This record gives sequence, C-alpha cells and structure tokens, in this order.
Amino acid sequence: MLIVQKFGGSSVANAEKVNRVAGIIADTYCEGHDVVVVLSAQGDTTDELLAKAAEVNPNPSKRELDVLLSTGEQISVALMSMALERMGLPVVSLTGWQIQMSTSFDYGCARIRKVSTERIRQELDKRRIVIVCGFQGVCGTGDITTLGRGGSDTSAVAIAACLHADKCQIYTDVEGIFTADPRKVEGARKLDEITYDEMMELASLGAQVLHNRSVEMAKRYGVDLEVLSSYIRNSGTKVKEVTKNVEQMKISGIAKDNNVARIAVVGVPDQPGIAFRLFRILAKSKINVDIILQSIDRNGTNDISFTVSEDDYEKAMSLVAEHKESINFQDLYGDKNVAKVSIVGAGMLTSSGIASTMFEALSDAKINIQMISTSEIKVSVLIDESNADKAVQVIHNKFFN
Amino acid sequence: MLIVQKFGGSSVANAEKVNRVAGIIADTYCEGHDVVVVLSAQGDTTDELLAKAAEVNPNPSKRELDVLLSTGEQISVALMSMALERMGLPVVSLTGWQIQMSTSFDYGCARIRKVSTERIRQELDKRRIVIVCGFQGVCGTGDITTLGRGGSDTSAVAIAACLHADKCQIYTDVEGIFTADPRKVEGARKLDEITYDEMMELASLGAQVLHNRSVEMAKRYGVDLEVLSSYIRNSGTKVKEVTKNVEQMKISGIAKDNNVARIAVVGVPDQPGIAFRLFRILAKSKINVDIILQSIDRNGTNDISFTVSEDDYEKAMSLVAEHKESINFQDLYGDKNVAKVSIVGAGMLTSSGIASTMFEALSDAKINIQMISTSEIKVSVLIDESNADKAVQVIHNKFFN
Repeated sequence: MLIVQKFGGSSVANAEKVNRVAGIIADTYCEGHDVVVVLSAQGDTTDELLAKAAEVNPNPSKRELDVLLSTGEQISVALMSMALERMGLPVVSLTGWQIQMSTSFDYGCARIRKVSTERIRQELDKRRIVIVCGFQGVCGTGDITTLGRGGSDTSAVAIAACLHADKCQIYTDVEGIFTADPRKVEGARKLDEITYDEMMELASLGAQVLHNRSVEMAKRYGVDLEVLSSYIRNSGTKVKEVTKNVEQMKISGIAKDNNVARIAVVGVPDQPGIAFRLFRILAKSKINVDIILQSIDRNGTNDISFTVSEDDYEKAMSLVAEHKESINFQDLYGDKNVAKVSIVGAGMLTSSGIASTMFEALSDAKINIQMISTSEIKVSVLIDESNADKAVQVIHNKFFN
Repeated sequence: MLIVQKFGGSSVANAEKVNRVAGIIADTYCEGHDVVVVLSAQGDTTDELLAKAAEVNPNPSKRELDVLLSTGEQISVALMSMALERMGLPVVSLTGWQIQMSTSFDYGCARIRKVSTERIRQELDKRRIVIVCGFQGVCGTGDITTLGRGGSDTSAVAIAACLHADKCQIYTDVEGIFTADPRKVEGARKLDEITYDEMMELASLGAQVLHNRSVEMAKRYGVDLEVLSSYIRNSGTKVKEVTKNVEQMKISGIAKDNNVARIAVVGVPDQPGIAFRLFRILAKSKINVDIILQSIDRNGTNDISFTVSEDDYEKAMSLVAEHKESINFQDLYGDKNVAKVSIVGAGMLTSSGIASTMFEALSDAKINIQMISTSEIKVSVLIDESNADKAVQVIHNKFFN
C-alpha cells in the first residue's frame, strides 16, 4: 500500500517527539508499505519566527512572511529524516518547491493548484521514505507561498490525491473523532467512521481536528482519510464518502462553538432590499455571517438577527451602527455571551424526530434556545454561553445513552 | 552602478543589527545604485540548528544537514527584506534555488557551477533591492547544497561575477585589511589596496577576513572586491589584480598562525621514494602538509620535518608511527608549541633583502627560527609559539616604522 501520513506541529515539537513519530513511520515502512510523510513546523517555531519578524517590522509583507515561515517545515523534515537515518532507514526530505506544490498567488492563504508526483515517485521507487514539507508551496513566479490555517492537512490530502494513495492518515493529539469533546463530555465515544459531510460540519462547528479545506479536498478526490493519535497506537476514525452505520447511528457528533456573537437589528421597515443592504455592508468588510433569522414584527417592521464570530463582533457592530440611516433600523443589540451547539449526522435525512429529540433534551434541562438553524445533516441552536457545556452533555446523554 | 554587498552572520545577528545593515543598504540604493545583497545566517542560528540535529542524530547525512542549515540564510533574507519594507523601499528576497545557484553534488562543501542572473535582473529592472541567501545552492538533482566555510563570500563574488557588477563589497566586523592584527600589533594600519595574490596568502595564513575560495574566484573573474566595516562608515580595503603602490610598499601584511604543529621524522635512509611514501600516507588521510624541510644528516640518513595544522597533529603522529617500518625511520618528534609568522607582499619579487630584513628583526629580538618557507610573494618562518606575538610586532616595527 501507499500510505500518506501527516503529523502536526505538536507531534514533532522536540527531539523526543520526533523520535516517537519516527517510530510510527518506521513501523509502517517495515510492514512493507510505501510511505510519504507530511510535516508541519515544530511546536513553537512559527510563533518564534513571527516574533523575530515583529522585531524588525510590525507589518511585514505577506510574501516575506511566507519566505520566513516556510523555514519551519524545512527544519522539521530535515530533523525527521535524520531521526530515520539513525534507525538505518533510507529516507529523503523534500520541500514544497522540490515537489512542485503549485499554488495560487495568495501569500499566507494560497490554494493548491497541482502537485507534481515525479520526484516523490522517483524516491518511492528507490524504496525511500519520503518526508515532505506541509503548509508550503510555490506560485507561478517561483515564489514561496504558505497555505494558511489547516495547510498541512490540505498538503497531505493533495499529495495523497495526486499519488492515488491507498490511505491518508492524519495523526493528531486525539485518538480520533468523538461524539463530543471527550475532555468535557462524559460518555463521549470514538467513532469508527464518519462521512466527509459530517466531518465538515463538525470541523466548522468547532471540533478542531481536521480543517475543512482538507476534508473538502478529500471528498472531491475520494481520498480515504483516517484521523488517529500519534501517542496511542490504536485505530482512529475513518473519514469516507459513505459509512456503514449511517442507518444505525442517528447522529455522529455534537459540537460546541463559543466563538460566536449575536447581533439583532430591530425595527427595519418590511421592504425588499433591506437585508441585502445590511449583509452587503458586512460582506464588503469580509465578515462572515452564520445563522440568520428574520421575524416579522406586529407594526409592519422586521427584526433581523444574525451571528458572527466573536473576532468580528466589534467591527460588525460599528459597521451596522455607521449605516443606521441607509439600513433604516430603530435599535441595535449585541450579545457576545452566546454559544452555538450543533448535532451532526448524515442519518438525519432519513430519520424524523432528531431535531425534536435535541430540543427535548434542552427543554428538560431548562436551557432556552435563542436561534435555530438546520441543514440536511445538522441542527444548530444558539444558547446562552453559560449553558453550553451542560447543553452538550444533556444532548449527548439523550442520543448516546 | 550595480553593487553586490555581502554581510556576515554577526552583522545580522539580531533585530538591531539587521536594522543597522538595512540602513547601509538603503543608503546605497538611495544614491541611485542597483543593489544585490548576500546574507549569511544570523549569528548563532547555525549552531542552534546543529544542536537540534545532534539531539536526533549525532551523525546525520550531509544531505539532510544542508536541508536544515539552509533555513538559516532564508530567515536572514526574509527579516532583512522586512526591515527594508519598513523603510518604504521596494525589496525582494530570493533563496539559492530561486536564483538557480547551481553547485556540485558535494553536500556541505559544494562548489558553485553557475548562477542564473535572470530572476535577479528581472527584479533589478523593477528597481527592487534584491536580498539573496548566501552559502546555499542546488545541485543537478534539485537538492539543496551548502558551500562550506567562507561560502557566503563565495556566493557574493559568484553573483557579482555573473552580473558583471561594478563592485562587490564584503562587510565584516573589521574596517578592512591591516598590515597586522590591529588588536594585537601596535602601529598596525589599514591598507587602501591589496592584490588578490597577497590577499590569498594572508587569508590562508590566518588573517580571517576573506575566505580564499572567494578571493580565488574574484581573481579568476576580475571582480573588484572591497572589504569594509558594517559598523563604521569608512572606506575599507580594495582587493584587485594590480595595486598602485606595489613598488612603494614592500610588504602588505604580516600574519600569524598558531594552529600549526611540527613533526620531525629523524634518521630515514637517503634513498629515493622515502619522502614520497611518507607524504602519500598523510595525503591518503587528507592531512594537508604545509612547510617541508629535508636535511641531510652526516651518517647518510635524512631528517624530514614538516608542519600540519594542530587539528591533524595527533592523527598525523600516529599514522607516521604506524608506518615506522615502511618509512624506515629511527625517531619521531612532534611539537605543538610552534607558530608560523609570515610576511606577504607582491613587491617582494622586485625587491631584494625583504627576507633578510625579516630575519634581522627576529634576530635582534633573539627569536630562534625553526623552519623557513618562501614563495614569490611571501616568507614564512616557524618559531616557538610563545614568541609569536612579539615576532609579529618586531617585524611590523621593522617594515612599517
């Protein structure tokens, strides 16, 4: 089999961890597989490099930041190769430009266009373990780019797709995908399998295991993903198109996102174009709006409520306030003390009563629901932040016990 | 003018120094020149990276070491570019592979084969300051190489040669080339000019300002070098083919090398092939022999004395001892407490009495000479190490006062 393995920054943070990961790689190789490994920068390297940059320029260009930051993975791949050399294994490290990881020109958040498999294939044909820099690429002018958040996962999936790898294993510091955060929710259990769509909903809902970009790409190219632990040698969670137990298990997981704020624009005239005007203003400033709720008031005016990330909250509030006249609203309210709790499951489509089971759990626990949003595979509710952990637990109890 | 400027690791060791050097670059650019800057890794970066490597593998491959070490210059060029961006200047950083610095396959000590000027020219045409990684290149397979000791100087000269630059300035922590080490020799003075040949003799004799490889290359391609300080804004020393004051000044400089040991092989038969056998043994183990002296003894046997670097001393002694039978000597003596003091000057060829002036100075100071070696532009003597500093001073007084 050809297996692509990705290890994140915390898994290679120091010499001891590098050696532990080298052991995993060595075992896979010695079972007779072809192995391509994708690495992130070591633990704090990125922060250290950013601090160095800040000392000479608080606002450097994104191009030069990418030149700087891309050294982080290069250090990781060299050290990992050395660790494997010490075990007497044939190994070679390759950078983003050496595997011709072609990207767009968006420094700091480049999109992958193409990966050349030529060099990697050559090395695999020599029965070498290939250690590749994640997170980085080169754009059309031959300049260094980085892929932004979740970049190394995306690199791994792109490489697995181009090589038609049999497996793409994403090693993390958790054992797999859980029905809820196992550190916080009693009875949370590891899933053996999950669909791409469920995974994407869970990822965007705050279960920070895999970045959505990588899952999207895995879905598009049919790459079989597995999320597993670099600390405990156990099978993890497989992420694939269709899972066996879709019918059996009604939901796959519960996620909580505290990084949410609610904004209510109260008393806008019931006229066409108002909502458009409001959300265009926010879109122009690159503020993403999540849940939107519009209610008709008795006096022929509407209330529009929506959520944004907490990071965008202040900016969104002042933008809306600035445009009071053009939006023509009466009052503006904001609340950062809210959280979004979501249940995700591909089985929802064919099972009725999932949403009402969730609402029942919340009602039993006397937790008030402020907003509701549903899609084909998820139900999200906005509740008071102080109730969030409790909400996840009672919903989990309802579905899994 | 097109000016290539090279700054070493200590000149860019921290943010403050990066900013100082950025000031020098900015001034040159703002005078209207095209500027290409070659940088080494920051101060201790290389040592830090080597320590990281040692933690995972005490004996890593040279290929992976080069992957690791080449990140050092990449960090330097990114930071320097950011510092210049902050000054509002147009700037771009380029790595070894981006300028296609083609080298041999000798990881850790690669030789430069060719530099592509295309990308650098493109950037200069846009009136950008170009900041290039020294010390690193790529070999024919597209793998990262480093150039070994003095590599960044050599990178700078190679780039200056390929671009037909008007000047190649090597910035160091001294003000230029001195007639002797100014920290140790009273009256030592800065030279305005020196020839390539003199510079090479001085470099190999322990005046560690410019590495010989870079001077050799500058001579071959006729690159006008200037050695100057990154701390004091003053003209430095020009290194060129012919200097104006060759006739006037009999010697250019005095150098001392303490890293020398003397080995005497006593009582070898006066037969052809003995010296050949001895030095072949040393050459096979890559031990460089410097001064060689063969004297005929009264009883038809010879004594052969030679010097090696102190680093090679133990190895050379045991190698010679091992081959006692095949070399057929009677006794073996060694001495690490010796130093080599040399005078260098292109004017020697046409001036008589230079060597005897040197010997006179030593004799007046009652310093015994153990061995003598001469070339067209230098005279070296081997003396007791404890007399070395005094010897340099009395010789300097004799020639320059």
